[in-house]
Amino acid sequence: MIINGPNLNLLGVRQPEIYGGRTFEDYLQELRRRLPEVEIEYYQSNVEGELINKLHEVGFGYDGIVLNAGGYSHTSVAIHDAIASITTPVVEVHISNIYAREEYRRHSMLSDVCKGVICGMGLEGYRFAVESYL
Amino acid sequence: MIINGPNLNLLGVRQPEIYGGRTFEDYLQELRRRLPEVEIEYYQSNVEGELINKLHEVGFGYDGIVLNAGGYSHTSVAIHDAIASITTPVVEVHISNIYAREEYRRHSMLSDVCKGVICGMGLEGYRFAVESYL
Amino acid sequence: MIINGPNLNLLGVRQPEIYGGRTFEDYLQELRRRLPEVEIEYYQSNVEGELINKLHEVGFGYDGIVLNAGGYSHTSVAIHDAIASITTPVVEVHISNIYAREEYRRHSMLSDVCKGVICGMGLEGYRFAVESYL
Amino acid sequence: MIINGPNLNLLGVRQPEIYGGRTFEDYLQELRRRLPEVEIEYYQSNVEGELINKLHEVGFGYDGIVLNAGGYSHTSVAIHDAIASITTPVVEVHISNIYAREEYRRHSMLSDVCKGVICGMGLEGYRFAVESYL
Amino acid sequence: MIINGPNLNLLGVRQPEIYGGRTFEDYLQELRRRLPEVEIEYYQSNVEGELINKLHEVGFGYDGIVLNAGGYSHTSVAIHDAIASITTPVVEVHISNIYAREEYRRHSMLSDVCKGVICGMGLEGYRFAVESYL
Amino acid sequence: MIINGPNLNLLGVRQPEIYGGRTFEDYLQELRRRLPEVEIEYYQSNVEGELINKLHEVGFGYDGIVLNAGGYSHTSVAIHDAIASITTPVVEVHISNIYAREEYRRHSMLSDVCKGVICGMGLEGYRFAVESYL
Amino acid sequence: MIINGPNLNLLGVRQPEIYGGRTFEDYLQELRRRLPEVEIEYYQSNVEGELINKLHEVGFGYDGIVLNAGGYSHTSVAIHDAIASITTPVVEVHISNIYAREEYRRHSMLSDVCKGVICGMGLEGYRFAVESYL
Amino acid sequence: MIINGPNLNLLGVRQPEIYGGRTFEDYLQELRRRLPEVEIEYYQSNVEGELINKLHEVGFGYDGIVLNAGGYSHTSVAIHDAIASITTPVVEVHISNIYAREEYRRHSMLSDVCKGVICGMGLEGYRFAVESYL
Amino acid sequence: MIINGPNLNLLGVRQPEIYGGRTFEDYLQELRRRLPEVEIEYYQSNVEGELINKLHEVGFGYDGIVLNAGGYSHTSVAIHDAIASITTPVVEVHISNIYAREEYRRHSMLSDVCKGVICGMGLEGYRFAVESYL
Amino acid sequence: MIINGPNLNLLGVRQPEIYGGRTFEDYLQELRRRLPEVEIEYYQSNVEGELINKLHEVGFGYDGIVLNAGGYSHTSVAIHDAIASITTPVVEVHISNIYAREEYRRHSMLSDVCKGVICGMGLEGYRFAVESYL
Amino acid sequence: MIINGPNLNLLGVRQPEIYGGRTFEDYLQELRRRLPEVEIEYYQSNVEGELINKLHEVGFGYDGIVLNAGGYSHTSVAIHDAIASITTPVVEVHISNIYAREEYRRHSMLSDVCKGVICGMGLEGYRFAVESYL
Amino acid sequence: MIINGPNLNLLGVRQPEIYGGRTFEDYLQELRRRLPEVEIEYYQSNVEGELINKLHEVGFGYDGIVLNAGGYSHTSVAIHDAIASITTPVVEVHISNIYAREEYRRHSMLSDVCKGVICGMGLEGYRFAVESYL
Repeated sequence: MIINGPNLNLLGVRQPEIYGGRTFEDYLQELRRRLPEVEIEYYQSNVEGELINKLHEVGFGYDGIVLNAGGYSHTSVAIHDAIASITTPVVEVHISNIYAREEYRRHSMLSDVCKGVICGMGLEGYRFAVESYL
Repeated sequence: MIINGPNLNLLGVRQPEIYGGRTFEDYLQELRRRLPEVEIEYYQSNVEGELINKLHEVGFGYDGIVLNAGGYSHTSVAIHDAIASITTPVVEVHISNIYAREEYRRHSMLSDVCKGVICGMGLEGYRFAVESYL
Repeated sequence: MIINGPNLNLLGVRQPEIYGGRTFEDYLQELRRRLPEVEIEYYQSNVEGELINKLHEVGFGYDGIVLNAGGYSHTSVAIHDAIASITTPVVEVHISNIYAREEYRRHSMLSDVCKGVICGMGLEGYRFAVESYL
Repeated sequence: MIINGPNLNLLGVRQPEIYGGRTFEDYLQELRRRLPEVEIEYYQSNVEGELINKLHEVGFGYDGIVLNAGGYSHTSVAIHDAIASITTPVVEVHISNIYAREEYRRHSMLSDVCKGVICGMGLEGYRFAVESYL
Repeated sequence: MIINGPNLNLLGVRQPEIYGGRTFEDYLQELRRRLPEVEIEYYQSNVEGELINKLHEVGFGYDGIVLNAGGYSHTSVAIHDAIASITTPVVEVHISNIYAREEYRRHSMLSDVCKGVICGMGLEGYRFAVESYL
Repeated sequence: MIINGPNLNLLGVRQPEIYGGRTFEDYLQELRRRLPEVEIEYYQSNVEGELINKLHEVGFGYDGIVLNAGGYSHTSVAIHDAIASITTPVVEVHISNIYAREEYRRHSMLSDVCKGVICGMGLEGYRFAVESYL
Repeated sequence: MIINGPNLNLLGVRQPEIYGGRTFEDYLQELRRRLPEVEIEYYQSNVEGELINKLHEVGFGYDGIVLNAGGYSHTSVAIHDAIASITTPVVEVHISNIYAREEYRRHSMLSDVCKGVICGMGLEGYRFAVESYL
Repeated sequence: MIINGPNLNLLGVRQPEIYGGRTFEDYLQELRRRLPEVEIEYYQSNVEGELINKLHEVGFGYDGIVLNAGGYSHTSVAIHDAIASITTPVVEVHISNIYAREEYRRHSMLSDVCKGVICGMGLEGYRFAVESYL
Repeated sequence: MIINGPNLNLLGVRQPEIYGGRTFEDYLQELRRRLPEVEIEYYQSNVEGELINKLHEVGFGYDGIVLNAGGYSHTSVAIHDAIASITTPVVEVHISNIYAREEYRRHSMLSDVCKGVICGMGLEGYRFAVESYL
Repeated sequence: MIINGPNLNLLGVRQPEIYGGRTFEDYLQELRRRLPEVEIEYYQSNVEGELINKLHEVGFGYDGIVLNAGGYSHTSVAIHDAIASITTPVVEVHISNIYAREEYRRHSMLSDVCKGVICGMGLEGYRFAVESYL
Repeated sequence: MIINGPNLNLLGVRQPEIYGGRTFEDYLQELRRRLPEVEIEYYQSNVEGELINKLHEVGFGYDGIVLNAGGYSHTSVAIHDAIASITTPVVEVHISNIYAREEYRRHSMLSDVCKGVICGMGLEGYRFAVESYL
Repeated sequence: MIINGPNLNLLGVRQPEIYGGRTFEDYLQELRRRLPEVEIEYYQSNVEGELINKLHEVGFGYDGIVLNAGGYSHTSVAIHDAIASITTPVVEVHISNIYAREEYRRHSMLSDVCKGVICGMGLEGYRFAVESYL
C-alpha cells in the first residue's frame, strides 16, 4: 500500500526543479512492472483526516505501508497517533532531501513511529521502501 | 454532546496499555444508563474540519460540549478558534495523563478557551465532564 | 477568487468585538457592486485539505487568489506547499490585526510564498487585495 | 485526604473573580455531606516542606490523596519527588483553569507523577477527584 | 501624512530587484494625481528620533498616518511608544514582502500598535493605506 | 512593615563586597531615628512559607509592606500569589543591583504584582521604599 | 542632571492611565522647590545619539546623572557603552513598573552599568534618585 | 557535617530501584565505624528554609559540609546564596547519577558555589566527600 | 565505496537490541555476492580526521560513496565541509531509526550536503544506498 | 573613508584597559604618514541616522569604506540596510576582540553585508582594513 | 585503567590557577603507592578517535575505567556511543568544578552513560573513582 | 607558524566560488617572498587531535600562531582549551566571511581565547595576521 499526502497529486506539475517532471501514476506503472511479485495499491488525499481513515482501514491487514505524508509530516500529531495505533509497519518516504531545505521541513513528526525513513532518492525511494518488505 | 477526535474510533484496539481495552461505544452505553437524566449525543471524526463543522452546528444551542480532540488538541489553532466562536461551554477531556507522556503532548492549544480540563482519569473523565454541566 | 478558511463562515456571529458584526456574504455583495469589472468567485471551507483541493483547482487558470486561511495560516505546511505549487499569485488577508493578538497568531506559515499580506484593515482588506490584481 | 498548598487558606478572600467567594472549610462541609461514605481529612500549609512531611505521613496508608499544591505546583521538584516516593495515588486539582492564565502557570511539575489532573472546574474539581477513588 | 524611514530616500537606487526602480517622489506625484481629494504630506528621515519628533508633531491633528519605518520597524521600542502615545491612527506599510526575507525582518515591533499592516504590494501599498482612511 | 527573606539575617557577615559590612538591625535603628513619624516593624525568615504566612497576617491591615525576598524573588510563584492575594501594596527592594549580577538573578517573579522596585541603592533603598508610602 | 529619553516630552499627554496626567516641567518645579540645596539641570531628546552626546558632555564633571532612557532602555548597546565610558554615576529611573508590562519591556540594557534602578514609583522615583546622591 | 534535603528521610523506602534499599541511618553507622577519626554530625529536613538555617548555623565553624539538597538542588537560589554566604566549604553529593535521569534534574543550582560534586556513586559518595576534607 | 565511522567496528557486539547481532564484514560478503556487478570497497575508522582524509582520497574519482558517520553525523562541521568539497555524491545511511532515539541523535549535520538519507532499514539500508547509484 | 560610530570619540578616555590610551586623531595622523599614497577621510557621529546619511553620501563614489559602528553594530537593521544599498564595499573593524566580551557583543548585524571583518587587532585593524583596498 | 583526553598532557603547565601545578605522572606514582593492591594503567591522547579505540580495546576485559575526556566531554556523541557499547563501567572525572566555569562546560555528553561523576575534587577525584571499583 | 585545519588542503579545488581557485602552497610562496624578514612555518591536518598536538608543540616557543581551524572552529572545546593552555598568542583567520554564511558557521568556539579575528579578506587575511606580530 502506498499512501501519498497533500500536493503529491501535482507531481510532475509542482516545482519540477525539486520534485522532477514525472507524474506519480507514470512511476507507479513502472514500479508495478519492475516488482511484479508485489501487489501495490495506491491512495492519495489532501485531507489529513482521510489519510488517517485510510491508515486505519489498511493498518491491520496489509504487509506494509509506504507513506509520504507531504506537508503533514512536519506537523501532524494525529497521523503520528494513527501510525502508532495500527499494527502494519510503515516506511516514511520523501522524494526530495528534506534536510537540505527549509528549517521547519527538517523535522518529521512521524519518523519516530515509523520503521524507517528514506529521503532524497527521488521516486526510487518508493521502490526501496517497497523492497524493504520483501 | 460528546465529540471525539482522531484515532478515538480505535479505542479498545489502539495501544490498550495506555488507553484501556474497552470501546467507546461500550462505555457510552454505561454512561447513558448511569446518567439517565442527561441526553448524550456522540460524534467522532478523524477530520479536523469536520470537528469544526460539528462544533459550529451544536455550539449555539446545546447545554454543554465534552471534547477530546485527540492529536489535534496539540496543534489546532482552527479548533481553538471554533471553540472561542461558539457560545456553548466546552470541557476538554483526555483519557490518559497527557502530562506524563511525550513533550509535545503536554501542551494543549485548546485549554485556554475551554471551561476546564480533565485528564488521566480514564474513560471516567467523560462522566465527570458531563456531570459538571448538571 | 476569494478563499476563506475555518470559522470565517461564522463572520458576523463570532466574536463581533474583533471581527465586526457583518456576514461575509453581505460584504461580498457590496464588493461585487463596487468592482463590477471584476468577476469574483467565493469559496469557504473548514477542512484544510479542501482548501488545498480548491487551490489546486483554480491555481493554474485564475488571475489572482485572495486567501484568508484563518487558523490554518499559523500551522499549515501543506497549504504553504499548495501555494508554492500553483502558478496563480496569492494575496494573504486577515481581517483583524494578527500582530496585536496572541503570540502564536503573529506568525503566518503562508506569508513567504504569498505575493503580499494585508491585515487589520477589516473587510476592506479583501477589496485592496482584489484591486492589487487590477 | 485533601491537601491544599500556599494561599489556599485565603480562599473566599483572595481574588474572588478568579477563585470564587466561598471559603474552603465551607465547601468541605458540603462535600462531606454529599459523600457521607467517604472519610475526608483536610490539611493546609503554606510551607513547601510541611506539604512534603504530610505526603510522607499519609502516603503509605491512605486510599487516595487529592492535592492542590498552589504556586508550588509550577516549581517544586521536591514535591514531585515526594509524590513519586509514596505509594498512595495522587490526583492533582486546580480550581481555576491554569491553562488560561499566565505562561508560567501552564506547566505543572507534578502532573507526570500524578494519576490524573482536573482543572478549571471550580471547587467541584475536588469532588470529582475524591469520586475517582470510589 | 506619509512618513518614510531609513534608506527609503534611496528608492529607485537601492537594490532595485527588491524595491523596484522608481523613486518615491515620482510615485508620490502619481498618488496625488490619483487621489486629488486627499491632501498628502510627505516626510523622510534616516534618524530614529526625528521620526519620533514628526510623529509627535502630526499625531494629534491629522486624519491618518502611513508609516514605513524601514529597518527601525524591527527594533524600535521608541517608535512603538510614539505610535501608542499619539491619537492619530497609523497604518504600517512595507514595499517588499518582509515575511519572505531574512528571519529578523519577519517581526515588526510596530504592528501591534498600528491599525493595520500592508506588505509586499509594492508602492501601491501606500495607496491602499491612504484609501483606508477615506 | 519590612520583611526580609533568606540569608538577609547574615547581612554584615555575608559577602561584604556585595552587600556591605553593616547588619540590618543596625540600619533599622538609624531608619527609625530618621523617620520617627513612621512605625516600622521588622520580620525576617529563611522559610518561604513563613514569609507567606507573614504577608497574609499583615497584608490586610498595614499601610505598606517593604519586601526583600532574597533568593525566593527569582523563583517563587507562591510568594507572587501571596502578594496578589493581599490588599496592602508591596514595594520590592534589593540591596545590590541584581541586573548587574548572574543571569538568573535578573528576573524577579514578584515585580509585576508589586507597586514598584528599587535596587542597587544599598540599604538606603529601604528608606526610599518606606518614604514612598508617606 | 536629569536626562529623559524618547516620548517623555509627551508626559501628561501620553497614556495618562500609565504615566499620570502631569507634565515633567511641572514636576521639575516642585522637585527644585523641595530640594533647594541641589542644582538640577534637565535635558530631553528623542534622538538616541543626542542622549549619548549629552552623557559625554556631563559625564566627567557632574555629581550624578538620573536617566530615564524610555524605549531606548531596552535596546541600546550604544547608550550602555556611553554610561560605561563616563565617570559620573548614573541612576536609572522608570515612571511605571516596567516589570508589570510587556515582555520586551522587562529587560533593560542599561541596568548593569548603572548604580541602581528605581521603577514603578511614579514621578517620585526621580526624587529618590536625586536624593541618593546626597 | 552531613546535611540531607527533602525525601532523603525515605531512603530505603523510596524507589529502591534508583536509591537502593538501605536507610541512611544504617549507612551512617557504617561510615562512622569506617572513619573513626572523623566526627560526623547528621541533619535532615524537608523544609528549604530549615536547610538554610542549618547551613548558617554550622557554616562558620565546621571543617566541611557534605550536602545532598535533593529536589531543592535544581531550583533553589536561596540555598545557593546560603552556601555562598558561609565560609565552610561544601561538597555536593547525589546518590543516583542525576545526569542519566530527567532533563530538569541535570542542572544543579548549587554546583557552582560548591567545592566539588560527586554523583552516581551510591551512598559511597558520602564517604568520598567526607574523605576529601581529610 | 562504503565508509563507516566510530563504533561501527563493534557491530554485532555493541547493543545488539538496537544494531542487531551481525558483524559488518559478514554483511559485506553477502552484499558483494548479491550485487556482483558492483565493486564495493570498505573503510572504517574511529578518527574524524581520517574519515575526512578518506573522503578527500576517493571523493573525486569514485561513482558513489555510502557514508555512515556514526556519532560524528550529529556534530561534525568538518565532515560536512569535506562532503561539500568533493564531487562524488554521498548517500547517508543509519542502521537504526535515529529519529526514534535520543533528541541529539535526531539531527544530522551531514544530511543537507548528501544526495539522500536512509535510516532504520537495518543493514539493508547499505544495499539500497548502493543500488541508488546503479 | 573611515567612519566611526558612537563613543569612539572618547577613545583614549573610555575604558583604556580595553581600548587603549590613545585618541583616534592621534592614530589617524600616523596612519596617513604610513600610507601616504591613500587619501583617508574621517567621520564620527553618535547618531545612528547620521551614520546612515554619511554612508549614502560616500557609498556610491569612494573606493572603500572602513566602518566601526560601535554599539550600533549589534542592533542596527537600518545601518545593515544602508550598507546593502550602496555600491562601495565596506570592511567592518572592531578595536577589541568582541568575541571575548559580553554575549550580546558577539553578534554583529552588519558582518553579513560587509566584505570582511577584522577585530581584536587594536587600532592596527584600521590599517589592515585600509590596505585591503590597495 | 585511567584514560585522559586532550590537553591533560599539559597538566602542571596549563593554567595552574585552575588545574594545579603538578603533572599527572607525578600524581600517578603517588596513587599507585597509595593503592598498591590495584593495578593502574594509564593512557592519554589528544585525538578523539584514539580515545575511542582505547575504550574499545579495554572495554570488555577490565574491571573499571576512569575517564577524563577533557574538552571532548562536552561535545562528543562518538565517545558517548563508545562508552555505551562496552561492558566495563566508566566513572567520569573532572579536576576542576566544571559547573563553576563557562556555560558550555556545564554539560557533559558522557555523564548519562557513565556509572557516576566526580568533579572539582582536584587530582584526588581520580583516587575516589578508582576506589569506587574496590 | 601558520596552522590550517580540515579541508584546507583542498584549497583551489574545493568550492572555488567561495574559497578562490588558488592552492595554499602557491599563496605561501608569495607570502614568504613578500615578508622575507619573517620565518613562516606551515602545518595542515584534518585530524582535530593532531592540531592540538601541534599547538602544544609550538605554543611555548614561537612568536605567534596564525590558525584557521576550518570546520573545527565552530565545535571544538578541545582546541579552545589548547589555545588557552599555551603561551604563544594566536590570531584566528577565515578566508570567507563566515558571518555571511550558514547559521552554525557564525559562531567560533575559538575567538574568545584568540588575540584577534580576521575574516572575509581572502588569502590576504593570513598576511595581515602575520603582520600583526611584527
